[in-house]
Formats: sequence, structure tokens, C-alpha cells
Amino acid sequence: MKGKLVKPQTLKGFRDFLPQEAKKRQYIINALKEVFELYGFEPLETPVLEYEDVLLGKYGQEGDKLMYRFTDKGDRNVAMRYDQTVPLARIVAQYQDLQLPFKRYQIQPVWRAEKPQKARYREFLQCDIDIVGSKNELADVEILACVSKACEQLGLAAFKVLVNDRSVFEGLPTSAITIIDKLNKAGEEKVREELQKRGFQAQLLDQIKKKPATDTINRVLSLLDAAGIIKEKIVFEPTLARGLDYYTGLIFEIEIEGYSGGSVGGGGRYDNLIGIFAGKQVPAIGFAFGFDRLYEALEEQNLFPRKLNDSTSKTLVTVFPGYENQSFQIASQLRNSGINCEVYLDEANVAKQLKYADKKNIPYAIFVGPDEIKKERVKLRDMKSGKEEELTKEELLKKVVNL
Amino acid sequence: MKGKLVKPQTLKGFRDFLPQEAKKRQYIINALKEVFELYGFEPLETPVLEYEDVLLGKYGQEGDKLMYRFTDKGDRNVAMRYDQTVPLARIVAQYQDLQLPFKRYQIQPVWRAEKPQKARYREFLQCDIDIVGSKNELADVEILACVSKACEQLGLAAFKVLVNDRSVFEGLPTSAITIIDKLNKAGEEKVREELQKRGFQAQLLDQIKKKPATDTINRVLSLLDAAGIIKEKIVFEPTLARGLDYYTGLIFEIEIEGYSGGSVGGGGRYDNLIGIFAGKQVPAIGFAFGFDRLYEALEEQNLFPRKLNDSTSKTLVTVFPGYENQSFQIASQLRNSGINCEVYLDEANVAKQLKYADKKNIPYAIFVGPDEIKKERVKLRDMKSGKEEELTKEELLKKVVNL
Repeated sequence: MKGKLVKPQTLKGFRDFLPQEAKKRQYIINALKEVFELYGFEPLETPVLEYEDVLLGKYGQEGDKLMYRFTDKGDRNVAMRYDQTVPLARIVAQYQDLQLPFKRYQIQPVWRAEKPQKARYREFLQCDIDIVGSKNELADVEILACVSKACEQLGLAAFKVLVNDRSVFEGLPTSAITIIDKLNKAGEEKVREELQKRGFQAQLLDQIKKKPATDTINRVLSLLDAAGIIKEKIVFEPTLARGLDYYTGLIFEIEIEGYSGGSVGGGGRYDNLIGIFAGKQVPAIGFAFGFDRLYEALEEQNLFPRKLNDSTSKTLVTVFPGYENQSFQIASQLRNSGINCEVYLDEANVAKQLKYADKKNIPYAIFVGPDEIKKERVKLRDMKSGKEEELTKEELLKKVVNL
Repeated sequence: MKGKLVKPQTLKGFRDFLPQEAKKRQYIINALKEVFELYGFEPLETPVLEYEDVLLGKYGQEGDKLMYRFTDKGDRNVAMRYDQTVPLARIVAQYQDLQLPFKRYQIQPVWRAEKPQKARYREFLQCDIDIVGSKNELADVEILACVSKACEQLGLAAFKVLVNDRSVFEGLPTSAITIIDKLNKAGEEKVREELQKRGFQAQLLDQIKKKPATDTINRVLSLLDAAGIIKEKIVFEPTLARGLDYYTGLIFEIEIEGYSGGSVGGGGRYDNLIGIFAGKQVPAIGFAFGFDRLYEALEEQNLFPRKLNDSTSKTLVTVFPGYENQSFQIASQLRNSGINCEVYLDEANVAKQLKYADKKNIPYAIFVGPDEIKKERVKLRDMKSGKEEELTKEELLKKVVNL
């Protein structure tokens, strides 16, 4: 080869997804889409690049540090999508004829220049649902019901939704809330210590823990029951704070029992964010699944369908020199019956062709060589058992459809 | 609202896809995936950002001008995905244990800082299939058969595949090939003129037009017939050049009769590209659909399923103050039967709720108010005809499943 070699490598915090993993990702995405649509959410896509002042709108300091930003060839200050909530807020302000409440889902990657570490990436997928334009608790119920159903659909039956209402913290300085928010990670002792260190009473934690559920929470809980969500799945957790962010009402997080990677998603009501763009208050509530954690939880709990480990192709049609026509004919018939298959794409002996099927986890192989054609038969081989049988083409099609 | 307003706007050449359009995009993507998998292609995802020297590998000058490039916070020169072929070449060199031939599809956006104009964007989707590791014509056949099937699947029955072999141009200077490549856009007269202007004989065009199909092409055509692709769909076109690019053998383009937007996709054999990363020759052949043209062709020819114009939700479950529980129960039952639906999310009179269903093209509305509950019935309204009927819950479920 001429020219100098380029080293094949990816950037730190960025990932390739080879077929095995890409198929599992696709499985989760499809399951989520199905549930989101069951609840009347519709898809939305926004650009990867936006004007920097649009994307920075909400984030200030944090965004300044972590956002991928640069100046484009037209000297515009642009930035890469950092979350999907700010673009949604922009959309609602920009398209005035959107029918409200606007219910959308969005499953696209976002970029954050964080320090790469275990299960923390610079490019990662977010899966959001949001309802814009209703401040009614019915919207809160739909979000929570949808999210619960999504967990069930993925087989994560041991999920719990922790719920709180930001009004529980009314009157507390944000510095105290920030400390209490660490309860789950740091433990009670540490939180008490830190509260005292910052001049608060250590009992503050106990006062918060004893707070009763708000009317909003009780109303939502009662309706969730009607919506078919088992009461025990929803847990009022008065110490849940979800950072300081932009939440204004109900907040929630999902945890999966037995999965130690932390919350798989969270959300809440944010009635003031859209105003940054719209100039008037537009209430909204939303939820985002962290895709990588969902993936990890499914992997840990062995919840991916086993067939995802097989090749996309159900059968390999082998080829014999001079009989390629026959192989393509069989492949074409299989495909017309909706069966994924591939034709072996080189001249090679049978052993090599079978080895390929084996390495790629293709469960069946088909032979249409001179012997089979003489007998007007086709040979089907089960790659796992090694069992072979000779069939007419009609028998083969019938058989493979049902395999 | 406090703080200054941010103007809600998108960058030139970048697009939002609101639900109506996003659903149509999803429809094409799903159809393509289905066909790609039918032919044994498996999904691959690569990062949006890569090292600049990786992405520039192939492109030199052109990439230099059009690629989105910047320096990240760690002072690395990075660039945004410009196509999907170079990342594929990197993958093949980087993961040495990939089973060859490697058949992958990839459907991700790419970015090019081109001058925005009609149907030319700076962020757009590419849909690629490639076979890496076989220089056999059987691979060429599989690519062409798959691409033809994809057109059929989308309803683009009037497709034609123009095929040529780069060896047809053997011995010709690239400047002559560049001129001949413009035949389709500029017409014969212009091409002849330009050939003469550049010191070639005007007859050169006729000589090329009379070239016979190469052995490779004849072999591929004969096998395509066996693979179920009607002969007339594949047209040998000796003037097809597909730029100067990196093609080494078979090249092809797809045209849709009656669609004037140009070729909806193209590809060819590129046996030397992967060597830039791998340091050894790895043969490959691939094809890319231009997503926006496919979309436009389907739109023009009215080929999107009509149901895509309806809302994702099949029914709106209306709410009556004090009877929200009943609405959520019905919605939950519908969803358990796999029916997409939404609950109206505010207090509003019936007229307003129906107006919402109407505006969102939700085809049915359901009422469970005090009247219905007294009668132990549910009311179903066909939003188009205005017809209403009272049903038991069981009757409703059965009915709506089949609507």
C-alpha cells in the first residue's frame, strides 16, 4: 500500500458498537419505542449541532465546562447536543402551532466532555419522554405509568419508582438540599456530619424524613393505582432531591433491585424552563432513561433474549463452484418467505464454509451441490447438533420458517 | 420570566423532525433494516467524533474543506463523521478478530459543511451496506440483490440499477473520466464540447458508449437473475463513472423512474481503501442510500402508508372531573391489549377534548363519564364520521383491537 498508515483508534470516552452489542442496543430501543407509543408519545429528532446560546440556555457554568463547543466555518458559535430537554424547550417555542399538550419521545445521543471512567462515556444515548403544556397531575401520572410499563416490558420487574415533591424542601437553603441529596451515595452518618459542618442541625435530616407526602403525590399515587401500577412499586422518598436543576414539582427516579449501578433514570416537573425561549410559562414534565445503565442492568440480570446471540442470519446457504445459481435461488426463496439468510461469498471447501457459519453463530446451513441436485433435494444442517436432513425445496421452506 | 430570552432557532442546513416527519423517517429506516437483515447484514454503530487523521484518511482536499473539525478540550484534533465508509475501514483494521466476510449495515447521520441549498443539508442520514473481505463477484451480487429488494420493499418498483466496471475506463486520463461522468447532468452535447476543449476527441464519448460489458458484469448479471432480480432492472451503462473516488471495480447507481431528484443511492467495489488503516489489502464492496432522496421519492410518488398521517395514538380517552380513575383504567386495559392510546391531560369540556383529538388526527375517542358508568357502558366515537356507539368494556376492547 502506498501512503502512510493511519492508526485505527477511537477517542477516549467514545465507543464502537459491533453487531453483537448493536443488536442488543436496538432491542432496548425498540422496546422503549413500543411502550412510549403505547402511551401516545410521538418521535422527535433534533440536530446534533445547535447555536451555543440555545444549548447553554439552561446550564451556565456546568455546560460551559462540559459542552462540546466550537466555532464553525461561518464563524458561528455552535455546540453539540448536551441533553434533549433544552432542544425540546426550543422546539416548543419555535413551532407555535404545535398542538399542546405535546407528547414526544426522543432517543438520540448526547455529548459531555466528562472525565471518562467506568460506565461514564463522552457520547451516550438518552431516552426521553416529556409532556409539554399540561400542569395537571394527570400528566405526571401518564409519565410514571409509561416509565413503569417500560421497565416491565424490558423484564426489569424489580423496579421501584422513588417519588418526591420539590415543595417538601420549601424554605430550605439550597446548600442543605445539596447535602441531603447525597443520602443515597454517602449514607446517613456522612449527611448528618456534613449538615453540622455547614451550620445546619443534624436533626434536619430526620425532619425531612418524617415529612408527609404532599397532596400532589397522594393524588398521583391514587391515579397510578387506577392506571394499573401496583402501589408498592411507587415509594414516596422525601429525601430525594435530584440535584438543584430546574425542577419545580414532582421529581422521581427509578431503581432496579439487585442492580448496583445506580438509578436507571429520573425526571420531574419543570414548569419554568421553556420560558427561557418562549417568554411565557409553559408547564412540562419529563423523564429520561440512562441508556447505558438500562443496558448494564439487562446484561447483569440476563434479560436479553437469547436469540440476540445468534447471527442475524438464520441460515447460511453454502456454495459449490458451478452451482452458485442454485444457491442464490434458494436464498431468494428463503428471503421471499421472510427468512434472514446469507450466501457464502467465496470459493471454499465445505469445512471452511461450515466454520464460518459456526463462528458467526448462524444456526443452520443449507447445501445445494451436485449430489443434492441429482436427487432433487436440498440438505439442511443444524449447526449445533450437526444433524442433517434432505428435503425438497418446498419442505425446506416450510421447515425453516418454523425453526 | 427572569433572565434574557434566547431566540429559538436552528442552524442553516440543520433540521428538526417533528413527529409527522420523524414517523415517516422511521418507516423508511425500519423497512431498510428489515431488508438489510434479510440479506444477513448486521448493525454497526460508530462514534460521531473521531480523530481527525482517521476521518481525513481518504478525503484529503475535499474533506479538509467540508469536514466539521475542531480541537477538543484535551487538545486533540477531532472531526465529525463525514461518511460511514472510512469508519468501517477503521473498524476492520482495529478489530482483528472480526469474522470475514464482514457484512454490516449502518444508518447514522453524517455532517458536511456544504453550501445549503434545496435538498442539500449539512446534517443528513446515510444508509450503508458493505461486505468486507470478499473480492468474489458473489459479494457484488448480494449487494445488488439487497439494494433492489430494498427499493421493492419501499414500493419504488420503477427503480433501475445502472452498472459499470471501472476497468471500462482503463488507460483514460482521469480528466476525461471526470468529463464523461457529467453526461447525465450536462447532456451529450456539453460533454462532447468539453472533451474537445480539454484536448480529447469528441468521439471518445461514442467509443465509451460502445464498450461491451466486462466479464465481471456479465457474471454478476447472470447470477442476479438467479437471485430473483428481473434482468431489465439492471442496466449496463459504460459512461457511469461515480466520480473518481476510491472505486476499483464494479460501480452502480440507483435511479427511480419518475423521480427527478437524481440517483437515490450508489456504490461500488473499493479494494484499496481499508489498506490505509490495515496496511494490507482487504477487498470490499458497498452501497449507500441517500436518505433524503429516498424520502423525497416516496413523498412524490405517494408511497408512505396513509396511517402515518394519523396520530400514534389510536384513541383518546377523554376525562370527566371526578372520573379520572375510570379513564385511566380504560387506558390501561387498552394498552395491555397493545393499543396505543392517550388520556386527555387537563380539565376541559368535551368539545375541547374532541378538538384536541381532531387536531392530532387521533381516529377514535372514548368516553367514560357519569352517564356511561350508570349504564355500565363506554362510548366510542369515530372521529371522522362522528358516529358514536355504547359498548361494554369487553366489547370495546375487542372492537378497538380490530379497528
